[in-house]
Amino acid sequence: MDAMKHTLRDLAEYLGGRVVGDGSVSISSVASLRSADAESIVFVEDAKHLASALASSAAAVIVGNFGAGEVSVPAPAQKPLLIVSQPRLAFARAAKLLRGSEERTRSIHASASVPASAQLGKGAAVGPRAVLGEHVKIGDGTAIGAGCVIGDGAEIGAHCRLDANVTLYSGVTLGNRVVVQAGAVLGSEGFGYVRDSETGRYEQFPQVGRLVIEDDVEIGANSTLDRGALDETRIRRGTKIDNLVQVGHNVQIGQDVVIAAQTGLSGSAVVEDNVIIGGQVGIADHVRIEEGAILGAQSGIPTKKVIRGKGVVFWGTPARPLREYLKELAFLARAAKKSS
Amino acid sequence: MDAMKHTLRDLAEYLGGRVVGDGSVSISSVASLRSADAESIVFVEDAKHLASALASSAAAVIVGNFGAGEVSVPAPAQKPLLIVSQPRLAFARAAKLLRGSEERTRSIHASASVPASAQLGKGAAVGPRAVLGEHVKIGDGTAIGAGCVIGDGAEIGAHCRLDANVTLYSGVTLGNRVVVQAGAVLGSEGFGYVRDSETGRYEQFPQVGRLVIEDDVEIGANSTLDRGALDETRIRRGTKIDNLVQVGHNVQIGQDVVIAAQTGLSGSAVVEDNVIIGGQVGIADHVRIEEGAILGAQSGIPTKKVIRGKGVVFWGTPARPLREYLKELAFLARAAKKSS
Amino acid sequence: MDAMKHTLRDLAEYLGGRVVGDGSVSISSVASLRSADAESIVFVEDAKHLASALASSAAAVIVGNFGAGEVSVPAPAQKPLLIVSQPRLAFARAAKLLRGSEERTRSIHASASVPASAQLGKGAAVGPRAVLGEHVKIGDGTAIGAGCVIGDGAEIGAHCRLDANVTLYSGVTLGNRVVVQAGAVLGSEGFGYVRDSETGRYEQFPQVGRLVIEDDVEIGANSTLDRGALDETRIRRGTKIDNLVQVGHNVQIGQDVVIAAQTGLSGSAVVEDNVIIGGQVGIADHVRIEEGAILGAQSGIPTKKVIRGKGVVFWGTPARPLREYLKELAFLARAAKKSS
Repeated sequence: MDAMKHTLRDLAEYLGGRVVGDGSVSISSVASLRSADAESIVFVEDAKHLASALASSAAAVIVGNFGAGEVSVPAPAQKPLLIVSQPRLAFARAAKLLRGSEERTRSIHASASVPASAQLGKGAAVGPRAVLGEHVKIGDGTAIGAGCVIGDGAEIGAHCRLDANVTLYSGVTLGNRVVVQAGAVLGSEGFGYVRDSETGRYEQFPQVGRLVIEDDVEIGANSTLDRGALDETRIRRGTKIDNLVQVGHNVQIGQDVVIAAQTGLSGSAVVEDNVIIGGQVGIADHVRIEEGAILGAQSGIPTKKVIRGKGVVFWGTPARPLREYLKELAFLARAAKKSS
Repeated sequence: MDAMKHTLRDLAEYLGGRVVGDGSVSISSVASLRSADAESIVFVEDAKHLASALASSAAAVIVGNFGAGEVSVPAPAQKPLLIVSQPRLAFARAAKLLRGSEERTRSIHASASVPASAQLGKGAAVGPRAVLGEHVKIGDGTAIGAGCVIGDGAEIGAHCRLDANVTLYSGVTLGNRVVVQAGAVLGSEGFGYVRDSETGRYEQFPQVGRLVIEDDVEIGANSTLDRGALDETRIRRGTKIDNLVQVGHNVQIGQDVVIAAQTGLSGSAVVEDNVIIGGQVGIADHVRIEEGAILGAQSGIPTKKVIRGKGVVFWGTPARPLREYLKELAFLARAAKKSS
Repeated sequence: MDAMKHTLRDLAEYLGGRVVGDGSVSISSVASLRSADAESIVFVEDAKHLASALASSAAAVIVGNFGAGEVSVPAPAQKPLLIVSQPRLAFARAAKLLRGSEERTRSIHASASVPASAQLGKGAAVGPRAVLGEHVKIGDGTAIGAGCVIGDGAEIGAHCRLDANVTLYSGVTLGNRVVVQAGAVLGSEGFGYVRDSETGRYEQFPQVGRLVIEDDVEIGANSTLDRGALDETRIRRGTKIDNLVQVGHNVQIGQDVVIAAQTGLSGSAVVEDNVIIGGQVGIADHVRIEEGAILGAQSGIPTKKVIRGKGVVFWGTPARPLREYLKELAFLARAAKKSS
């Protein structure tokens, strides 16, 4: 992976920051204080870590506006600083800029299976052994990884990245700048069965709806997202989903939601905007998580329950407000000790 | 996906139902009330929803035998009805019939890797980039998806469907009409190790047994089913397994069992017929779940425990009868409040 | 899979054991008492099971040094015994020896994608449709399964086995004798985002660190292991990881750790040597599990918590010593009963 080089001055312009010191130093990567070298940039969020950053091998340091009293401008011998309002965010954006060159070398690999009916945008890339179905549409600058299988009629927007061995079932649609990591499965058939009251056997309820992934959604490795049964499953703009997450049929997830690894959402659950969900959380069918609620790791929300409370943390199974749950745990520990 | 068209009268004959109204209307798909169009059929399970169904854009409505007093035969201007004893089940079967034409266009893709020793049934299909090992047997009408890898000596029955990127290890056997969704792994080596008491290091206990999947089993995306250690892992007829489920070595699962997403069964667990298991349930090794028990989501069954009770719901970790568990939760909430 | 044949005498020499009876019998496989045939060897760990083993169809029995008083040397008509200090371990090693011939037939499949920049060791094999990136290094005797995708610059040691459809991201390094089962994803980008305080949108924190897997590590099917964010994720020598396990960015796992299925470790968690972790355990970020602790299935360790206690079992969420947790459960059951 050849990264691009930029001067610190270029970075400052791109990030909307201000250089203190030598803006002509060359930067080619982001790094931690420990792993930094003479061409990397590091960041600190707190003035008290500035000294360590200046002592690292980094070429430059991204820092916040800590206030005049807190940051002493480094002497000429010290490292140049890049002062921004959100240092962690600026660091993340710098990383993206420095890796930006990778997109240019993309192409359609000779071993990819691309039917004549496929529509590929400018600069779209398809990796070795990838298989596109009929009438697939792929937007500008999107990269399909090696071994991916894209079903008939799937539509993928611009500047998306599908890593290796991803499966998209037919008809799935992805917006722009969507990232899907390796092994994820999008548009599988949901878990809906009808039991024949005469024979006791299960038959599949139709799972023929859509799966719609909006712009800037990111999906982790080996996660599984089911299509709707008759209607649609939808993940809205900017939501981030970790590895090994299960999203059932007809689930609706709002904007800027964060879902940590191994969490599962059952059929028809609704998650509103700005919700934060920890790892291994279980959300039963027809649950509603209202805007801005926070679900602690491993908590469980029973069927049809509504969780309400912007910024309120819930924990336990069945989930209750963290404060209540901690009281219960404390009471139980005390009472069990006393009784023994 | 071009679906077939059928008249409502055809459907009635196939489903064993009775038409009230115009049986000549043409049906090409199933739909929800919301997504219905002029060629789709919808269903209602309750007489009180009939009015909405008649107000939808659907061509016809599947309804139950609600009794003479409840269903008023629609006026000629209204939609035709298809009256059956189990409307949800009839709807599911109608969906299958309407999608039935898909199977006909199947073939062996030129990019599939099919050795001369493979035996393929009539109408069997192998998708692009799929890899069959030596001496694989595939039954009539079975479709192997793109990117699947089928190990040496695996046997797959008739009319099965393996979606994209599925892995079958060598020697795995599948019955008829088995469905395996994308990314699932069947026949992996189980998690069994012997610790060398001198070095403290772990060495693998042999994982060389079989994995047998019987007829009509369905397995969700990215689920993993281990082969037996020395003997076999077996999933019996009609059992349905959701996404991201783990089945350990030597597990025995009965008939018509339902297992929701992200549940895990440890080695040598036994699940009898007609058990229902919620999502994220953890079943330890050598557990036995007796016939017809119901395990609530996220519940946990400790080692060697026997769970007994047809139709009884168990919840919590360690799982206890739901009634007991709810009492404990209520007591705890009250007592903690009082004590604070 | 043609296995090799060995005489019992050969096995005894290889395993460091002693034959009682006819050492010339031919052994081609390991088996359970139930599945044994005339060429298989079985084992018993307890003198009381010896009679059943002698009554089985096996050719020979591996037994421990039960002491002179416990094992009566079988009459000439009975089966030969192979006496060792650790019978289960010897049985496991016998299995490995008997399957050893498989490695010899390996090669580079014509349909594999192997660029000129790849370096392959002696006897290394690459399966059908596997895709190697640029500058990949693969050690002697290592086998890459069908459909694997190996990213640029990945380094894989000697005598490793990657099963079908495994994904290695670029730069991942594996030691010697590493086993990765089907569908696992190694080196994916971790779940780290920065929220823009002005727009409320999430942007990815750089996930550009390394993933290092040391010698003798084994990883289960469809597990996902993230690379470091800026530094590295590392799994040390001899650790065994089951199916569907999630390992977050910057996690450090020690030597000879055992992690059962569906467990998740969040970012920067540290697990020291010889820890045993049950299934579906959730370990939050920055947790430290100290040497030799044992975490019961489904337990949960909250953020930054330190778990200490060699050989101590912890259970519940938040995890506490098993003894305490069982007391709490017993108290709760009693008190709830009394109060109702």
